[in-house]
Amino acid sequence: MTTLHPLDEATTLTLTGARTAVGATSHWYANMAGPFGGTTAATMLRAVLEDPARIGDPIALTVNFCGGIADGPFEVIWIEKRTGRTVQHWTVDLTQNGKVAATASVVCARRTETWTHRPAMMPAAPLAREVEPLFMGGRNGWTQRYAFRFIEGAPRFGEPPTDGPRSARTLCWLSDLPDRTLDFLSLAALSDAFIVRIIQVRGTIGPMGTITLTTYFHTDGEALAANGSRPILGAADAKVFNRGFADQEASLWRDDGLLLATSVQASFYRD
Amino acid sequence: MTTLHPLDEATTLTLTGARTAVGATSHWYANMAGPFGGTTAATMLRAVLEDPARIGDPIALTVNFCGGIADGPFEVIWIEKRTGRTVQHWTVDLTQNGKVAATASVVCARRTETWTHRPAMMPAAPLAREVEPLFMGGRNGWTQRYAFRFIEGAPRFGEPPTDGPRSARTLCWLSDLPDRTLDFLSLAALSDAFIVRIIQVRGTIGPMGTITLTTYFHTDGEALAANGSRPILGAADAKVFNRGFADQEASLWRDDGLLLATSVQASFYRD
Repeated sequence: MTTLHPLDEATTLTLTGARTAVGATSHWYANMAGPFGGTTAATMLRAVLEDPARIGDPIALTVNFCGGIADGPFEVIWIEKRTGRTVQHWTVDLTQNGKVAATASVVCARRTETWTHRPAMMPAAPLAREVEPLFMGGRNGWTQRYAFRFIEGAPRFGEPPTDGPRSARTLCWLSDLPDRTLDFLSLAALSDAFIVRIIQVRGTIGPMGTITLTTYFHTDGEALAANGSRPILGAADAKVFNRGFADQEASLWRDDGLLLATSVQASFYRD
Repeated sequence: MTTLHPLDEATTLTLTGARTAVGATSHWYANMAGPFGGTTAATMLRAVLEDPARIGDPIALTVNFCGGIADGPFEVIWIEKRTGRTVQHWTVDLTQNGKVAATASVVCARRTETWTHRPAMMPAAPLAREVEPLFMGGRNGWTQRYAFRFIEGAPRFGEPPTDGPRSARTLCWLSDLPDRTLDFLSLAALSDAFIVRIIQVRGTIGPMGTITLTTYFHTDGEALAANGSRPILGAADAKVFNRGFADQEASLWRDDGLLLATSVQASFYRD
């Protein structure tokens, strides 16, 4: 008997028609209210990746979190908006009880051999095996689905700083728990595996959540598979927290310095 | 007689039904093939901003450029996907001759009074009036619609570097030509006013173009209006050019240091 990895289980879609399917939230990736956004992003990406008409690899994924997702089943509907010779555009809706809970756009493309240049360098970091994983608490399923090896900016829940806001920067090694070979689904989920930066800088937990997340994939499936289940290095930061809304940016690197993905998001917060 | 600013003319939409409208490309913002992407982004944003049901200010805009847009008329259709107490989600399609040329998602929100924190600092730069504007050439309408005052990384078209790729970074003051008071429409367009970074680093012009652009707005309409038509400072950079696809990030600042917007994009390129 083969047991599905929790991520594969959480993102499973069962076709109900042409480009419509049903899925369900998973306790493995439960968040404070509803599922971890990274799983929602991976599920919507998976609808496109498994479509027989999909070409190439994903280049970009934008997911807009439109409303709460209750524990239980949901529907996913996707549309091929336009396919060119090398680039293909899709949109995806996730609905629950007839209401749109998330929308997404996915850009796929056939990569071509070209001049390649990688000006960005991986941040300096100790080896993953030299960093102890931090147990992130048992309340939320999703935080138990990753080994977080914090190098800088470990969360300090309930410890508000006394000398002004903390740095919004986090640097950590990340890997799936249990181990899973890296692919676009897990990379999409990992791009949302940094707690929203408002918690980081304030040390307190109030109403907050991601409202839109864009992830760019900078390599192909072979480069991801070659990572196996080794931890990848993630760096997250933020530029502004203003009147209820904040930004966040992240980069994810293979341990040999290859940039795998970058992501940006906007989140809401209340005092 | 009042003459419309070219940006207002280029983004004008005429309603043809409930949430459907027609617009047309403008020679004022012509690009090498079809219109400047910034105008397309601003047009799709405008459809939402002028909808009577829109709440608050735009927070995020993602535009996917799905296919070429020919000079001439196009149709815009928009959908209110979900409206909560403070956050509202829209999607927009731009079609031409029945084919989808661009898709977009727009997040709007009512900002609330909260704790505010701005860790990111504006890059150091001389005052705009101390920097001569560079004439960017007469071939494309859109490059004549901005005063570009380059501090770092002025484009050197047709001058490939002899000692390896140039830096992808550009720092410049940007303003509309003719002058126009800053608002969300012009800020959306300005977030695409940096030439794709592949030109910057290689100094050559081959097939290339933006395929998806996400812009986050970090302030409100009053803060934009308070800028008047003063130049804003823009910084652009890139992390990776790999097998036909590259990233790009940008930030836009009011001259007193207020972060107005950040943007990211993915573009294709060929050798």
